[in-house]
Amino acid sequence: MKKLFLVYGLLAATFMVYIWYYGYRDDKLGGWEEGTAGLVGEIDENYVMVTFQSGLDYWRGSMKGFEDAAQALNVSVEFRGATQYDANEEITVLEQVIARKPAGIAISAINPEALNQTINKAVNAGIPVVLFDSGAPESKAYAFLGTDNYEAGAQAAREMGRRLGGSGKVAVVTQPNQLNHQERTHGFRDTLYKEFPGMAIVDVVDGKGDTLVSEKAAMSVLDKHPEVAGFFATQANGGVGIGQALQMRGLAGKRVVIGFDTDKGTLDMVKDGVINATLAQGTWNMGYWSLLSLFHLHHQTTQPRTNGETIGVHPVPPYSDTGITVVTRSNVEDYYAK
Amino acid sequence: MKKLFLVYGLLAATFMVYIWYYGYRDDKLGGWEEGTAGLVGEIDENYVMVTFQSGLDYWRGSMKGFEDAAQALNVSVEFRGATQYDANEEITVLEQVIARKPAGIAISAINPEALNQTINKAVNAGIPVVLFDSGAPESKAYAFLGTDNYEAGAQAAREMGRRLGGSGKVAVVTQPNQLNHQERTHGFRDTLYKEFPGMAIVDVVDGKGDTLVSEKAAMSVLDKHPEVAGFFATQANGGVGIGQALQMRGLAGKRVVIGFDTDKGTLDMVKDGVINATLAQGTWNMGYWSLLSLFHLHHQTTQPRTNGETIGVHPVPPYSDTGITVVTRSNVEDYYAK
Repeated sequence: MKKLFLVYGLLAATFMVYIWYYGYRDDKLGGWEEGTAGLVGEIDENYVMVTFQSGLDYWRGSMKGFEDAAQALNVSVEFRGATQYDANEEITVLEQVIARKPAGIAISAINPEALNQTINKAVNAGIPVVLFDSGAPESKAYAFLGTDNYEAGAQAAREMGRRLGGSGKVAVVTQPNQLNHQERTHGFRDTLYKEFPGMAIVDVVDGKGDTLVSEKAAMSVLDKHPEVAGFFATQANGGVGIGQALQMRGLAGKRVVIGFDTDKGTLDMVKDGVINATLAQGTWNMGYWSLLSLFHLHHQTTQPRTNGETIGVHPVPPYSDTGITVVTRSNVEDYYAK
Repeated sequence: MKKLFLVYGLLAATFMVYIWYYGYRDDKLGGWEEGTAGLVGEIDENYVMVTFQSGLDYWRGSMKGFEDAAQALNVSVEFRGATQYDANEEITVLEQVIARKPAGIAISAINPEALNQTINKAVNAGIPVVLFDSGAPESKAYAFLGTDNYEAGAQAAREMGRRLGGSGKVAVVTQPNQLNHQERTHGFRDTLYKEFPGMAIVDVVDGKGDTLVSEKAAMSVLDKHPEVAGFFATQANGGVGIGQALQMRGLAGKRVVIGFDTDKGTLDMVKDGVINATLAQGTWNMGYWSLLSLFHLHHQTTQPRTNGETIGVHPVPPYSDTGITVVTRSNVEDYYAK
């Protein structure tokens, strides 16, 4: 009987230690779980990416970035887009998305003005909106994430200057009426003149964003200035057109060509040495950091404070330059769709 | 005796249920903790912020942002800095920080060149480095987060133009030899000329970043151009100097003054209506997004991929504009240190 009481007493004591120990741990873990540490959302928190002309291969990188961020933050994402290059269709898609009150929307704007009213409607309804790739500066969107086109042109100039040893005449094939292409041309021109005084731009021609038009434009440059040592295309089809012109004239590999973007046609020419380098935009960054920005705007848990007081500043950078990478023969394989 | 055995049996059963239940919960929490969801680091992951002239009130916002991000991500942060405005001291501090191999370093560079070698040493040793507030463009740092000074000047111009109804003559008090101040002046000038054709800049004077020099410079502007309707100061002491000049001439509140930054002197004058508005830099954003960038560089878990293949792009935006907020009498209280 005495022995039994001893066992009974020991058991009760162990039990109490257990309760105390696990109770204590639970408090700690419970507090942690409720979000004092780690950026984590709810799986029913739905963020939507809206693009114009949704079929384009170009969006692949941004979509992957958006998805990667969703996985990292434990939230859901969805992709919507206008099937055609049509502003009204993008507005309609956007209206449908807004009606479902998502946690946030990332938009690539078809042009700088058309979506302003619809974007403002979303923001006024309390839905965070950021723009990526192509912005809408007059809208109420909280942020824009995209390529610094002037800087991209500057990088093209440095690549050109380096490959030509700092001397020679070059030409630009561009779309002179579009803002982003103007900026690329200006960045190229300014940097060439400032950093490579031995070089000159002999011609700036309109390729109209078309391979054939660009090819003819490049031919006319070669006719007028046979000594031209290099070409910079501010747009993908421009680079392919230049490459075709050089191939026809038997000059492929004998002129330096700097292209833009990483469509299959451009990558093939990089692989073959017809285009020496092309500029890849930071599309993954656009998608990934768009979602991170939307997440912070949605949760509002991390609003800027000064000494504990919330002040009227948005907790995301209004502009992020998503960067440029130079693609050459040595890394071109990484850029093919697999 | 039978009764006692019943109690004993029940107790043992309850105990087993307890063990089973808590053991199960532990497994679940353990798996979640290991990071399948949520951006979360380790508490012994140490990120360091290094500033020049560490005592400045100006760093308060960036430090708070860095700390807030550390709490959100469950990592540790530390603040180091040169006690004086001395490039060699900042280099020494940086060398000491590098020697301890932290998870990442955020640096405000004393000037654009002095730290390049030391920054590159850290990056070559595998320590991620980003710059905030003041950059080092030629270094190997992965990103720069700071104010777009040209855009800040543009916002000052819009605030000025709006307050003066689009007409009148204005003057600028600046530091003409410093790049960030040149950019603020250019943004102000370009925007005023483009968006407010009824306005003109009659004088741009050197306040040397000093209150008294700025006061005298503002007086001389008032002597030469008594009709001047507004002043823009590209730096904090400039705004206070202009305010003092106006007070002495009995013109306080009768000229529009747009200041810069949110030191106590400037805020007091905003409160008193001597300075109409001042531009607060997004210092919290600089600190918060610096740590988020470093975290992503350190973990490398979210590198940009195209179809599952890792490519040679850094997973952070190379430049982020951390924004500007206009501080007026209506929100000035939020900006005082408490």
